[in-house]
Amino acid sequence: MKVVESVHEADLAAVMLDLSEREAWLVFDALKKERRAGVLAQAEDALREDLLEQLTPRQLARIVQVMAPDDVVDLLALVEPEYADRVLHSVDFELAADLRELASHGPETAGGLMTTEFVAVPQGTRIGDSIKLLKQEADENSEGVGLFVVDEEQRPIGYVTDRSLLTNSIHDVVDDVMTEAKTVAVTQDQEEVANELTHYSLQEIAVVDDAGKLVGVVSFDDAQDVLEEEASEDIFKIIGTSAKLQTRLPIHSRVLARLPLQGVTVLGGLTTAYIIEQVMRKSTGGEISTGADILRFVPIVIGLAGNVGSQASTILVRGFATGEVEPDREVSVLRSEVLVGLCIGLICGLVTFLVIGAIDKGQAPFHFSLAIGIAILAAVTWAAVLGCVVPMSCRRIGIDPAVVAGPFLVAVSDVSGTGLYLAVASLMLGH
Amino acid sequence: MKVVESVHEADLAAVMLDLSEREAWLVFDALKKERRAGVLAQAEDALREDLLEQLTPRQLARIVQVMAPDDVVDLLALVEPEYADRVLHSVDFELAADLRELASHGPETAGGLMTTEFVAVPQGTRIGDSIKLLKQEADENSEGVGLFVVDEEQRPIGYVTDRSLLTNSIHDVVDDVMTEAKTVAVTQDQEEVANELTHYSLQEIAVVDDAGKLVGVVSFDDAQDVLEEEASEDIFKIIGTSAKLQTRLPIHSRVLARLPLQGVTVLGGLTTAYIIEQVMRKSTGGEISTGADILRFVPIVIGLAGNVGSQASTILVRGFATGEVEPDREVSVLRSEVLVGLCIGLICGLVTFLVIGAIDKGQAPFHFSLAIGIAILAAVTWAAVLGCVVPMSCRRIGIDPAVVAGPFLVAVSDVSGTGLYLAVASLMLGH
Repeated sequence: MKVVESVHEADLAAVMLDLSEREAWLVFDALKKERRAGVLAQAEDALREDLLEQLTPRQLARIVQVMAPDDVVDLLALVEPEYADRVLHSVDFELAADLRELASHGPETAGGLMTTEFVAVPQGTRIGDSIKLLKQEADENSEGVGLFVVDEEQRPIGYVTDRSLLTNSIHDVVDDVMTEAKTVAVTQDQEEVANELTHYSLQEIAVVDDAGKLVGVVSFDDAQDVLEEEASEDIFKIIGTSAKLQTRLPIHSRVLARLPLQGVTVLGGLTTAYIIEQVMRKSTGGEISTGADILRFVPIVIGLAGNVGSQASTILVRGFATGEVEPDREVSVLRSEVLVGLCIGLICGLVTFLVIGAIDKGQAPFHFSLAIGIAILAAVTWAAVLGCVVPMSCRRIGIDPAVVAGPFLVAVSDVSGTGLYLAVASLMLGH
Repeated sequence: MKVVESVHEADLAAVMLDLSEREAWLVFDALKKERRAGVLAQAEDALREDLLEQLTPRQLARIVQVMAPDDVVDLLALVEPEYADRVLHSVDFELAADLRELASHGPETAGGLMTTEFVAVPQGTRIGDSIKLLKQEADENSEGVGLFVVDEEQRPIGYVTDRSLLTNSIHDVVDDVMTEAKTVAVTQDQEEVANELTHYSLQEIAVVDDAGKLVGVVSFDDAQDVLEEEASEDIFKIIGTSAKLQTRLPIHSRVLARLPLQGVTVLGGLTTAYIIEQVMRKSTGGEISTGADILRFVPIVIGLAGNVGSQASTILVRGFATGEVEPDREVSVLRSEVLVGLCIGLICGLVTFLVIGAIDKGQAPFHFSLAIGIAILAAVTWAAVLGCVVPMSCRRIGIDPAVVAGPFLVAVSDVSGTGLYLAVASLMLGH
């Protein structure tokens, strides 16, 4: 366990994520209270949940006592309310009150992001006295980088960095060295708070209640987490999937997260097929050949292959950027992503088979709709393979995978997916 | 000018970006040297370029003298080499040497990101002496939040936060209160550096040369800029466009940035049309009706409409998230994005018209290829309108635009684009 003791908690949390639940617990169990707190604060939710399952409320309470209150609130949001209550009853009264207060704010607001551990001094305080106060609070607030100056109503009016305290005379008053305090409302959206912090390059921002009173502080590292999270969320929403850490989720969650987009695509494709049928009947006087009938479903194939390919490749590109997909995880990610593609292909092929068989007015004998369904399955699975292999190969040979993941991949999967679909369908229908 | 004086430089830079070149210069010209430095440091490149055009090398040198060296290097990268040389000749010798050293590193590396203004003390230094040193360097290094401890070879071995200096006895040595120093190589990619900083929640990270010597420091706010930049870059590359701040670029740059993707799509679509033609000829015995012939180009329409729609909507979603597209800019963004769509539609329609007319083996009389070209133009422009109006409406009625921008938008633009294309083509060909 000597090795484990010298590893940074952020690294430990990252490594434990790749261990089995039992192995992760064995490592965690061997750690001291402070190290456990560090790991829990840095871990992804999946690991946190595994570890929390093994801890009794009393054990967790002891760890929580040495954690930042905002991290504790995030942690308690993952457990049953009764369990959280029992933890709150086991920590000291003041902390419990802080935690209840913090937990009352929405998790995606400034209130959910802030910590209540900050140092504030009244106007006119001498720098020497401010430093004395910091020394008294050193145990509780060791990670701050400055302090706030407040008026009689506890409203923040200024901010003094630790560096200013160090480089100015202890006889000066804080008013002379403070900069204007930037504030956000406790109900403000966390993305706006993070943008405010980065816009002004601030280290800390004051959170105020309705009356303008200082109630908490959001620091730059919280903002970084939010920005990374929101950027990933936006990317994943745009390609039609949700949740972060896609490559670490179980297969069924990944399939479920990506299905809504495929539903919309299949619906859109079937509508297009209907429109095309009308145009064809008009132009040929009512008759449609099998060959032309197969063509009506090309838009579904193009849509699905494009979706599945770009979802897989985008998840990889983002995973490369955030360090989620390290080179040693490539094989397992490839295998699981292809499995996800296969499942989506199966479901969409089945749905198309059933819908064509049931309501479509084309040729629609049983083996026609079956052929279309199987051809869709083949094209979609193929797109999933392309969506993984292309960005992985790009990274290996030193081409930026993000450039290739978009345009190139969609075009290649469109053309090859359509070709594969036509080949399978024609073959099965004897053309 | 009283109002201007009280505004934060980051806000000033943001406002000036929306002014005309002349207006922006009038505001800038009225500022003091230190404020000019702040605005230049915070401004986007477009504004920087406008302002630099008006400044003589001597004027710029005076401003540069009070800026952080890493910001100066970014600035000088925007001007002609001769101009930069004249600036370097006008600043003091030490700064010029630092700037030349910094400029020698790749702009996307740790070396290009770091500042050379940091404070380092040897092992065994007392805290009191460290504070004295900070006071001496206060003018040059007012934004630091800690100092590095180095060994005899100038290799970083520890980091001491300002807070630790404040809360520990001045008689202690730094060795007792320092934490392990994290380091990155001067040649390391800036995205890796930023990930390192956020992974360990660091405020500053040491940059070392080949010999392991401390040569610079990258701080958290540099990391934030990099992460936001890289996330935007990845998103824009995935949707097939480049450059940041899409909505602020001139129309022709935006069209040019998005054209490569359309080229790939048109090429893929024409290939698909060729494959379909083969299957059709086989199934009908050589003959193709006009109605069926129009259908062969549906994949091009679906591909282009999907691209243009999702590019416009993704740029808006990202613009909403980073604050680039404020509500008061919506109308001008809508107008310019539709114009971009129109241009892309024109170019792609024209190319398809020419290619079909020249080499396609379908019916291909002049008015057939013209009809296809015009139908593509109509469908693509329509997709651009949808790609702007849908996310803007979503934001207004409180639905998350990112969710709708992806799946929903692509499906709607596929179906309505295909319908529009078929309608226009059929109408022009008299069906």
